[in-house]
Amino acid sequence: MKFGVQYYPSHWPESQWAADIAKMKEVGVKFVRMGDLSWSAFEPAPGEFDFSWMERAIAMMGDAGIKTILCTCSRTPPPWLYRKHPEILPKDQNGVTRYQDGRYAVAMSHPVFQREALRIDQAMVDYFAGNENIISWQIDNEIGCHNDCYGDHSMSQFHAYLKEKYKSPNALNEAWGEHFWAFQIQEFEDVPRPFENPHIQLEYRRFLSSLNVDFGRSRYRMMKAADPDKPVTTNFQNLYWDHTDYHALSNEIDVNGMNHYPARTPELALDCLRGDKGEVWVLEQQSHLAAIDSPTGWTRLWAWMAIAHGASALIFFRWRQCRYGCEQFGDGLLPHSNREGRLFKEFAKMGAELEVLADVIEPTKPDSKVALTYSYESRWAVKASVYGEEIDPVYEAVDLHKSLAKVVTSVDCLDPRADLSKYRLVIAPRLWLIDDAVANNLRSFVEAGGTLCLTAGSGIVDEVGKCFAEPRPGKLCDLAGIWCSDFVGTKGLELVLESEVDTRLSGLRASVAADEINIDGAEVVAKHGNGWRKGLPAITRNRVGKGQVIYVGVRLDTSEMLPLISWLTEEAGIEQEFDRVEGVTVYERVCDDYRLLFLLNWTDEAKAMSIGSGWADAASGEAVGEEVEIGATDMRVLKR
Amino acid sequence: MKFGVQYYPSHWPESQWAADIAKMKEVGVKFVRMGDLSWSAFEPAPGEFDFSWMERAIAMMGDAGIKTILCTCSRTPPPWLYRKHPEILPKDQNGVTRYQDGRYAVAMSHPVFQREALRIDQAMVDYFAGNENIISWQIDNEIGCHNDCYGDHSMSQFHAYLKEKYKSPNALNEAWGEHFWAFQIQEFEDVPRPFENPHIQLEYRRFLSSLNVDFGRSRYRMMKAADPDKPVTTNFQNLYWDHTDYHALSNEIDVNGMNHYPARTPELALDCLRGDKGEVWVLEQQSHLAAIDSPTGWTRLWAWMAIAHGASALIFFRWRQCRYGCEQFGDGLLPHSNREGRLFKEFAKMGAELEVLADVIEPTKPDSKVALTYSYESRWAVKASVYGEEIDPVYEAVDLHKSLAKVVTSVDCLDPRADLSKYRLVIAPRLWLIDDAVANNLRSFVEAGGTLCLTAGSGIVDEVGKCFAEPRPGKLCDLAGIWCSDFVGTKGLELVLESEVDTRLSGLRASVAADEINIDGAEVVAKHGNGWRKGLPAITRNRVGKGQVIYVGVRLDTSEMLPLISWLTEEAGIEQEFDRVEGVTVYERVCDDYRLLFLLNWTDEAKAMSIGSGWADAASGEAVGEEVEIGATDMRVLKR
Amino acid sequence: MKFGVQYYPSHWPESQWAADIAKMKEVGVKFVRMGDLSWSAFEPAPGEFDFSWMERAIAMMGDAGIKTILCTCSRTPPPWLYRKHPEILPKDQNGVTRYQDGRYAVAMSHPVFQREALRIDQAMVDYFAGNENIISWQIDNEIGCHNDCYGDHSMSQFHAYLKEKYKSPNALNEAWGEHFWAFQIQEFEDVPRPFENPHIQLEYRRFLSSLNVDFGRSRYRMMKAADPDKPVTTNFQNLYWDHTDYHALSNEIDVNGMNHYPARTPELALDCLRGDKGEVWVLEQQSHLAAIDSPTGWTRLWAWMAIAHGASALIFFRWRQCRYGCEQFGDGLLPHSNREGRLFKEFAKMGAELEVLADVIEPTKPDSKVALTYSYESRWAVKASVYGEEIDPVYEAVDLHKSLAKVVTSVDCLDPRADLSKYRLVIAPRLWLIDDAVANNLRSFVEAGGTLCLTAGSGIVDEVGKCFAEPRPGKLCDLAGIWCSDFVGTKGLELVLESEVDTRLSGLRASVAADEINIDGAEVVAKHGNGWRKGLPAITRNRVGKGQVIYVGVRLDTSEMLPLISWLTEEAGIEQEFDRVEGVTVYERVCDDYRLLFLLNWTDEAKAMSIGSGWADAASGEAVGEEVEIGATDMRVLKR
Repeated sequence: MKFGVQYYPSHWPESQWAADIAKMKEVGVKFVRMGDLSWSAFEPAPGEFDFSWMERAIAMMGDAGIKTILCTCSRTPPPWLYRKHPEILPKDQNGVTRYQDGRYAVAMSHPVFQREALRIDQAMVDYFAGNENIISWQIDNEIGCHNDCYGDHSMSQFHAYLKEKYKSPNALNEAWGEHFWAFQIQEFEDVPRPFENPHIQLEYRRFLSSLNVDFGRSRYRMMKAADPDKPVTTNFQNLYWDHTDYHALSNEIDVNGMNHYPARTPELALDCLRGDKGEVWVLEQQSHLAAIDSPTGWTRLWAWMAIAHGASALIFFRWRQCRYGCEQFGDGLLPHSNREGRLFKEFAKMGAELEVLADVIEPTKPDSKVALTYSYESRWAVKASVYGEEIDPVYEAVDLHKSLAKVVTSVDCLDPRADLSKYRLVIAPRLWLIDDAVANNLRSFVEAGGTLCLTAGSGIVDEVGKCFAEPRPGKLCDLAGIWCSDFVGTKGLELVLESEVDTRLSGLRASVAADEINIDGAEVVAKHGNGWRKGLPAITRNRVGKGQVIYVGVRLDTSEMLPLISWLTEEAGIEQEFDRVEGVTVYERVCDDYRLLFLLNWTDEAKAMSIGSGWADAASGEAVGEEVEIGATDMRVLKR
Repeated sequence: MKFGVQYYPSHWPESQWAADIAKMKEVGVKFVRMGDLSWSAFEPAPGEFDFSWMERAIAMMGDAGIKTILCTCSRTPPPWLYRKHPEILPKDQNGVTRYQDGRYAVAMSHPVFQREALRIDQAMVDYFAGNENIISWQIDNEIGCHNDCYGDHSMSQFHAYLKEKYKSPNALNEAWGEHFWAFQIQEFEDVPRPFENPHIQLEYRRFLSSLNVDFGRSRYRMMKAADPDKPVTTNFQNLYWDHTDYHALSNEIDVNGMNHYPARTPELALDCLRGDKGEVWVLEQQSHLAAIDSPTGWTRLWAWMAIAHGASALIFFRWRQCRYGCEQFGDGLLPHSNREGRLFKEFAKMGAELEVLADVIEPTKPDSKVALTYSYESRWAVKASVYGEEIDPVYEAVDLHKSLAKVVTSVDCLDPRADLSKYRLVIAPRLWLIDDAVANNLRSFVEAGGTLCLTAGSGIVDEVGKCFAEPRPGKLCDLAGIWCSDFVGTKGLELVLESEVDTRLSGLRASVAADEINIDGAEVVAKHGNGWRKGLPAITRNRVGKGQVIYVGVRLDTSEMLPLISWLTEEAGIEQEFDRVEGVTVYERVCDDYRLLFLLNWTDEAKAMSIGSGWADAASGEAVGEEVEIGATDMRVLKR
Repeated sequence: MKFGVQYYPSHWPESQWAADIAKMKEVGVKFVRMGDLSWSAFEPAPGEFDFSWMERAIAMMGDAGIKTILCTCSRTPPPWLYRKHPEILPKDQNGVTRYQDGRYAVAMSHPVFQREALRIDQAMVDYFAGNENIISWQIDNEIGCHNDCYGDHSMSQFHAYLKEKYKSPNALNEAWGEHFWAFQIQEFEDVPRPFENPHIQLEYRRFLSSLNVDFGRSRYRMMKAADPDKPVTTNFQNLYWDHTDYHALSNEIDVNGMNHYPARTPELALDCLRGDKGEVWVLEQQSHLAAIDSPTGWTRLWAWMAIAHGASALIFFRWRQCRYGCEQFGDGLLPHSNREGRLFKEFAKMGAELEVLADVIEPTKPDSKVALTYSYESRWAVKASVYGEEIDPVYEAVDLHKSLAKVVTSVDCLDPRADLSKYRLVIAPRLWLIDDAVANNLRSFVEAGGTLCLTAGSGIVDEVGKCFAEPRPGKLCDLAGIWCSDFVGTKGLELVLESEVDTRLSGLRASVAADEINIDGAEVVAKHGNGWRKGLPAITRNRVGKGQVIYVGVRLDTSEMLPLISWLTEEAGIEQEFDRVEGVTVYERVCDDYRLLFLLNWTDEAKAMSIGSGWADAASGEAVGEEVEIGATDMRVLKR
């Protein structure tokens, strides 16, 4: 359990470092993350490198027993590079150049940026490779953020990307459909900037994402070549960003890293960004957000929540608030004045707790029988369509996940092409785009006995965003035993369901969107109960060998998900072990030898919860009864 | 009655055409509209024309007894033309070039576009002229849509337009007023792009509209020269677009055509776009709108509603949803999968009904004693002013029209300069701009004994958007017997009226805006009942010979219009023949020999309605009683 | 008391002037403001000046006993200058050129604009200098409005401004902080356009403001050189504009001038724009605003309100509504038709009243023991931060001022660096930026025995927008006896206070934002009563010698300010003299010999108010009893 903090030596006088490091050591910090966004300090003038200050900082940290995760910095060039090369700034779709005074203001596609970035990154990696106080490399900060560019240079590369993928203009015409609004191209250069056309939009998003993944791959190779034994990571951003397919980027690195800002990110993010690697490093754990009110005690609870979801590193962002710049009112365990306040006390408490608990937590991981799928391609395809933001599958995924958390103690969240063989239940919210790989993977899962739940708006388009000539859900039509004749927005309408199969499903309300389902072998689990849809199928089930496909043809309201989840998990043979108590969340990590139960109480009063027999307090080792108490705004870790 | 469907042969494999045409024939399709937006298929490479595929499609249709309305395509060029001539793209007011990946991305003023458009249109018209399976020509699709351009070339032509109209800079200075904010020009080239200045905005809108009308005129002449015996039409867009004065465009073609998307267009559109020609071809009848929920049965009712308003052609848009491109989730009687669903069944039912009813409907037309005026110039002048969107007269017109539909069975909607001699009542909502032609026309109408109703915000500006030196309503001041000292927004206030003249007018609520009326001969029909206006005139009447002018100096709320309309129609000597039943709308078409009554039931239950004696079912010929039943979500046509 | 009207001779035929002037004279007009925005009339063609028409207008006015305030016009060039020099148009941050068809479309920094503006202004001033009918010069209209520019030329001057201020790049790096997001500059030219970076934003705002102040200074010198005995003024805009530091501009002119549009400006504006000069000329008094409903009688009351706040000139805007241009539906005492309506009657009534009262009002001024501070630098610094619009201190100032008006009869509103020695109570709402000058000034005030009230969000940043290394409120920390560890947005939360010190402070509600206060010597006046803050300090008091600092660590809701103000004024030893009556506002102006009480009744009914003994009606001289009646929508001036 890597417990620590982000530190920026260049933001403070060197004379202050020793006192800062001493205080870190005092509160249990064992790791720091450093180096990101530091180009101007590493190369104050063109070609004049100065890595010595960082070397001193790393050494001082090392002397205090604190190891460094070192991050490269090239996506945020210093002003002198912009003065020489303003052409590296990204352009938006209207040709307007992005402003420079923030960060990440570079077009990933630009050869001058690429050359300069390679130069600084290589110099830095070469300089620090082999340093024993460095235990890991991080590839830049938030790869892909703000890097979208639509300039002429990006368009040229996009055309090259299309040529590589489609080979001939005619193949592209055929794949995308050629004569709608006179669209047929003769040369790849005919493809215009993306605005309205869904196929261009989808491929352009893929292209931009691939630039980000390419960047990750090249730096991974650079780091491994120079310093082969250290794990390489990078930090994924919160769930609502979709600039980069993090499943793909995850494949290019050793350890998934992430930002964890619970005040603006749903809990689902922890499971999505952990992905199929089973663990995740929280490289930025929220300490303070400008303009957001965080109750006392929650900073610690949020951090424990991350651990309960599989975090194996917990680096708080950041040691002290910066006195200047765009984030001067943002994160910092200590305020500008350096006086210890409530945030720092929570941090120190957590350090003390981990001194005791780290060893028992480390061997464990979350382990679930339920997976949610999370598909960047479906998000991108929806956004490339005429449908609005609210149709983005991520929102339904967030709602499903919230209800799952009240039934099970962990959920995996995966690319729909990932190995699903260990799961009993897979819920695939609005899988808008289904390609062969996805279809085959889900088919195998069901045929092997799994329960698959699809939801309204599934199987709408193929790999290039073209609608299927087959009825929806496209390649899963036969598996679902239904075909859908339409998918429409129902915003402003309240749809109500009726079910004779399970009373819990009666009365459920839905809005946003609904499918028009026609039965082709499936059984009807719930029908529409009102409006012109009254009597039409709303939820269906099709048994396929030992497996089954459940199709939920509506977008249930947030508050209505729990009955569906309860029914689904039962149907999938998953039993609910712990009855929930209002305001207490329950998570589990396991290893071969024992289970750890994490009980987090988010309320202002102590809560009692029944947990069954055999549990002991993981810190003290003392046995606890079948009913355990969790203090107000407090948490417990139990072991069995 | 031209019943049919839009078909795009180029969107489907040629092998599929035969099956599609066979199915069309089966459900009563007698007409198709084809050809629009097909440039890339007609000229796949520069100068290489290929019209043969369309020729084959027309022939196959013809063999099945289906005639073609053929549409030209030049406003949506193919990618190769943009590659060669990106300068044809329109620019917005900030000089930003419009994106290309949609449609209509051309500046109508650009000589390269004009030359190329002429080339493809002429080639197409020459190729197909005389084809016996073609029964009509359509000039492009939605002329004027997205063609607004503010680029240098458009500005030059605008300056030429001003020179042509005003002759000398001094004349323009005098007409517009010259020294407000140092505005006096020396050369026409001094006139800047329109942003704030109301006179520039108004003239620029006229200029842009005239480009669209010019385009229509030139194509009309081209078509008539090549194929003189076929009627030429084009499709007007829904009511909220005001890029083009459709009254003017209507004067350049034989038959008015229109799009009919009732889910986003008020019923008024049918009357406005029919205009003074008495009939209209619905060239696009809505089948399906992405993200809009259409109840079962309404697709057919909406189409019947169009017929009841005078449609003599009904071409559904479109046969099957396109699998790709920007409208892949939009219109289509058949879904991508080609399986027949509820929309297709409604369409087929309608085809069967028209087989029986077309002959009886065809000789008839709507015939009304009431006209609403609808002035593009007033809309443009309001939008060029500081007043907000809500002051746009179209919204008041929509509300007035809704209430009129509960009293009479048809309404004409006309340019205020049109011949009004046949009407007893003319309602002219917010005639903001009144030029001599309008003033003289309305004066003649009143002097001949008509009842004219003006509403708040009338006679505010002259032909160039300058305020009158005379009091409002300007040139109609004496006719109205009042003068208005102010027109102000009253958003957020609830004004309440009181009337001793007619109790129905007491208690009516108004908001949005109000005039400050001073009496100068008129009688007060209703006063303000609250606020600082209490006791001031709100509605006045001035008798002028046998005619009268009623001035409604407030903007009544939508729900408050009906009492006003009832009173107005009575005062104009128009009697309400049919008592309305909630949820049933009533329309009439007549010819010299008989009347047809269209009863449309929009509710989920059967409704009974009293209609008086002498009516027979128009389909069966069977007599019906004085009370007739209309089934749930169904309609009847009665004849007498 | 300069009572009069704005007149634009160039907007009307010269033949109409005589009638207009005769009518002005009839209703008591003694002064006109003329000349602004008249460049096209003064120089119809390049180099061809024509000032004669204005000379004739001034003379005709003078013959009627009406004196002129003459305004220069160079910030709104005529079209011919734009044709020759389009480069003078300002550019926005994205490089988009501002449209030209409004006014003020010039970049103040551009040398071509500067040269041309100097030319016309000098010619005009030289021409009219010494004219005896001119009693004052006005420097252009609304200096600084719409002049913000981010073009290359402005950036160059900004870099020069930075060089002048910071001397070396390293000094700037040190002042702003250098390595956050790789920001360190090597040359001043490295500083990019302002977007996100708070320090660039703040300095750019200062730079733009300084251009406007420089313009004022240069014109002041020009006028004084040519016509040394006449006071020079200019008109400040409503309170929500912050393009220019009006405190600084005020230092460059003789008399503060202002626009007074009460329908869109809070009453606070009158006190702010009067500033420390004790009087203000209302150069534009609202007569009519397009799309805003003004009750009968309020036009006059609003004008009296201005006088009650210290206005010594009252120039209504404008004589008659303009028939054309962007403001054709805006101000005008007379409508386009020139017929006298209710606005003109109110104006005439006021003229008659001032004939009687002007002499008794003239020697008096507002005189207060309470000051509010109003800091442009704090507004700019907040806006340069990540905090939202609602944190702008102006809104809290408006609320505090409204409640103050219910306790005292006048308030001064001053730069926090102004002389505060005459006040007992100074309220300094959200003094976000505190530099040495501000800190020292407030410290002196408190040490001399004053009561200083600070509010949440004070002392956050230093002169360049950098957070203090000391705890908040920075340099006033010791004086306040507290230190704040955080300032957070609490939008959506309802904070409730509890107080054992004064029951009026118990139950007060707050939202928007709150400080986290730690006590360091101060006493707790009120605590938080709910949420996780329960029990934490909310309002504190620290006695410093004979003075005290009260710190209000929350943003009280608008409705909750009055109890705080009552308590504060009592603590500062200020007694409330007049009990307020609902709907009646009370103001005072005094001179050495007598006091004047202004009672304004904004309701529809007569109101009685107790005022104590000894008062007489200022107009009639008749004594009034201890209870005085004010008519519905009427006012009285009393003297004692």
